[in-house]
Amino acid sequence: MKDIQSLEDHRKTPIQKVGITNLKYPAFFEGLSGKIHPVASTWDLSVSLDADKKGTHMSRFVEIIHEMHHTLSVSQLTRILKMMQDRLHAKKAFVRIGFAYFVEKKSPITEHSSYLDYNVQLEGSANENSTAIALTVEIPVTTLCPSSKLISEFGAHNQRGIVSIRITPTGDISFEELISYAEASASSELYAIVKREDEKFVTEKAYENPAFVEDLVRDVALHLRKDDRISNFRVQVTNFESIHNHDAYAVIEG
Amino acid sequence: MKDIQSLEDHRKTPIQKVGITNLKYPAFFEGLSGKIHPVASTWDLSVSLDADKKGTHMSRFVEIIHEMHHTLSVSQLTRILKMMQDRLHAKKAFVRIGFAYFVEKKSPITEHSSYLDYNVQLEGSANENSTAIALTVEIPVTTLCPSSKLISEFGAHNQRGIVSIRITPTGDISFEELISYAEASASSELYAIVKREDEKFVTEKAYENPAFVEDLVRDVALHLRKDDRISNFRVQVTNFESIHNHDAYAVIEG
Amino acid sequence: MKDIQSLEDHRKTPIQKVGITNLKYPAFFEGLSGKIHPVASTWDLSVSLDADKKGTHMSRFVEIIHEMHHTLSVSQLTRILKMMQDRLHAKKAFVRIGFAYFVEKKSPITEHSSYLDYNVQLEGSANENSTAIALTVEIPVTTLCPSSKLISEFGAHNQRGIVSIRITPTGDISFEELISYAEASASSELYAIVKREDEKFVTEKAYENPAFVEDLVRDVALHLRKDDRISNFRVQVTNFESIHNHDAYAVIEG
Amino acid sequence: MKDIQSLEDHRKTPIQKVGITNLKYPAFFEGLSGKIHPVASTWDLSVSLDADKKGTHMSRFVEIIHEMHHTLSVSQLTRILKMMQDRLHAKKAFVRIGFAYFVEKKSPITEHSSYLDYNVQLEGSANENSTAIALTVEIPVTTLCPSSKLISEFGAHNQRGIVSIRITPTGDISFEELISYAEASASSELYAIVKREDEKFVTEKAYENPAFVEDLVRDVALHLRKDDRISNFRVQVTNFESIHNHDAYAVIEG
Repeated sequence: MKDIQSLEDHRKTPIQKVGITNLKYPAFFEGLSGKIHPVASTWDLSVSLDADKKGTHMSRFVEIIHEMHHTLSVSQLTRILKMMQDRLHAKKAFVRIGFAYFVEKKSPITEHSSYLDYNVQLEGSANENSTAIALTVEIPVTTLCPSSKLISEFGAHNQRGIVSIRITPTGDISFEELISYAEASASSELYAIVKREDEKFVTEKAYENPAFVEDLVRDVALHLRKDDRISNFRVQVTNFESIHNHDAYAVIEG
Repeated sequence: MKDIQSLEDHRKTPIQKVGITNLKYPAFFEGLSGKIHPVASTWDLSVSLDADKKGTHMSRFVEIIHEMHHTLSVSQLTRILKMMQDRLHAKKAFVRIGFAYFVEKKSPITEHSSYLDYNVQLEGSANENSTAIALTVEIPVTTLCPSSKLISEFGAHNQRGIVSIRITPTGDISFEELISYAEASASSELYAIVKREDEKFVTEKAYENPAFVEDLVRDVALHLRKDDRISNFRVQVTNFESIHNHDAYAVIEG
Repeated sequence: MKDIQSLEDHRKTPIQKVGITNLKYPAFFEGLSGKIHPVASTWDLSVSLDADKKGTHMSRFVEIIHEMHHTLSVSQLTRILKMMQDRLHAKKAFVRIGFAYFVEKKSPITEHSSYLDYNVQLEGSANENSTAIALTVEIPVTTLCPSSKLISEFGAHNQRGIVSIRITPTGDISFEELISYAEASASSELYAIVKREDEKFVTEKAYENPAFVEDLVRDVALHLRKDDRISNFRVQVTNFESIHNHDAYAVIEG
Repeated sequence: MKDIQSLEDHRKTPIQKVGITNLKYPAFFEGLSGKIHPVASTWDLSVSLDADKKGTHMSRFVEIIHEMHHTLSVSQLTRILKMMQDRLHAKKAFVRIGFAYFVEKKSPITEHSSYLDYNVQLEGSANENSTAIALTVEIPVTTLCPSSKLISEFGAHNQRGIVSIRITPTGDISFEELISYAEASASSELYAIVKREDEKFVTEKAYENPAFVEDLVRDVALHLRKDDRISNFRVQVTNFESIHNHDAYAVIEG
């Protein structure tokens, strides 16, 4: 049966990325602690294509995922990239894997346990000489407006916000550590369960720790800059403003 | 050229709805005041299909939209439904048209003008004897938690919420009137522009008007029940809780 | 600490549903075969609220989820509903749990294994006297247009479509059985991996089995009607038309 | 009333972008031909913030939008950026405006008129010395798989795909011209209305013009490279594969 993808192409036009995206797959992610998390993951894999080749072989991407989905980890990304380069005869390879990462936490006063979901992404890219890894985690938080607090006789508007942190790690760093940088910088962290005593605590804590998007993005950036396991980063804070139907945001790249 | 849709079907299975959905179209909506709103609308049109017919004629739906998109209004829905019944030889017809409806409003103290966007839907359904119309509008608001206020020494968590109102009108009623029912019942209404004096006002107003989803859904329901131009309704309030990563909601149908 | 939710309400307005929605939680779903599926689930839980009560107790919903997330199954829905009625002192309770359900399948000719994802929902509702259960599964398929095939000298437009089946079961029925009804009725079923021989097979199979949305919705309805473990159903087919930027759809309720 | 945003900040951390996002606004876009398009637009505006300033003034962004929404065009972006730099005392400014752009077209044989929707974005960024503009347009098309056609005795799988083109213009270039590059390169362009004769035409045309994502992305890149009004570009093609539940994609930057 003919393999049209392997024909020669005459358009003299290399392709930076060709592959598959939005593939949902069950997988098992192993965190730094060794704990295995079963996850519902979404995959994006691509390779570069030389100017003289007509097409890539899409089914090989899914074969690689099927082989590797049982042993997902940051350190496995390098192996996945190598498999892609070898089996697709490609100079460059790119992979991104996203999933909801669940962390069990206790409410601050009554200590009720519940899970909170954080969207995370593992990314890897390889060329002929080197490999680069990036980790992303989105942390939902409470933010309370310092201006609203200052100018109002009582109350202050507050809202859910999302802190999105993307880093290039140079050493072992867990999602939990990145999450703690955002939660320590926000007006309050979030919990799935809060009982009345917890609700009083988080309400008062938020009121005592007001933070603009500007404050939050800077405080997270300071944490990341101090951590010598991180070579560069991007932080974005997006606030779902409670007094507007639009959002506020701030970005620092460092 | 053969018309396979018009062949006889032998499965003895009528179809309640067959048609097109997610069609984006430019349109001109005329409100009750006579003001014309250019809108970017999304259409869903379908008809019933008798058991003995193999298929409907999808292109006719788009022809009707193309003929009618310049003169959209609640009263035109009946005409659109009639066109669908006639041209598609159908007993029943259904249409739903959604778009962002923009209302210009002034900020409460400094009176700066800006637009706020409300998602609305016009729906119509017809059978051989009668036609039914429904209007839906989604109103973004601020809600402030009464429990958080009561138990905390200062502050109270608040957030953006959405009040979704769907009604069957029996007389002329504008989107602006439905919007006013939700905005009057919320802790505060929203504005695209607030200057410092406005921000103080909305912060303090929200603190003085705390409302659970339960309070808000009931207060909106009371407004709708009293309005004799409304024969039945459904109200849903969804709060994007600032202290959780999930939402709270409440529904009343009346 | 005061419990404002338990105060008396004077608006004489009962609430049909009040609760939480969009809560993401890790869970373990046990299918009919006994196989355990770890899933990333999204929860919607609500109860009715009597006219004389001011509010419900939102944290109790999450406590129930936390207790029950390790042992999810269709038969457990009844127990979850009972817990909600008891702990929230409610006449009515409603629960909906959605997740991606992964099924391993072999490609039709070369027999390469891969997973396909199907979105499913478990729903339950209870009043003082009875409980009702519903199952929903969304099956992605290929559909090929019979009219396009008939009138064209070669080729026929085809596209990805989604068959959404919602049933009330009266006996044990698996997601796999509902999936098979849709896949048997479509022009072709889908696979994550297809090698060249498989691609030839699915292309030719689709061309030999053209189906309008009307055909597909009817054929699935006939399967469901014949299955005496199903008391009533709703089938919707939505085609992401390859020759349009809008979708076609058809619905049968029976 | 105190202006907390204007206080001095001591964290020595400049912010690359701070502003508002997801603001929906009515606007009037003037194309190169002079035709005015009323649009429902979504805005993202931000500025840089120096290390020594605590916060920006969010309401000024919305004031600028309110002043400028009646006269939107590519050439106005420069003016909007200048207003942002001046009123927010910022070195850098960034704006992105997205909306559905509707083009009326005739079906290929029967010449029935209908609108097709293309998502477009206008982007501008300015620093102290220069301004950069980018235009993006997403073109939905049909793609038919060359491999499926070659290896199958009849038929070929095809599907809706999206060609996303982002360019830096160095001269006047219309969205219609960018659209034509994608539609000329695809297996077939799309129409909202096709009658039977049109359907035969587009089916046969697609079968005679098969294109992998690799072919389509290369052919569009060749068009863009030849156009001397374009200094650099990014093209992405995404195919909603009809035989898979995931998508294929390819990217060329030039």
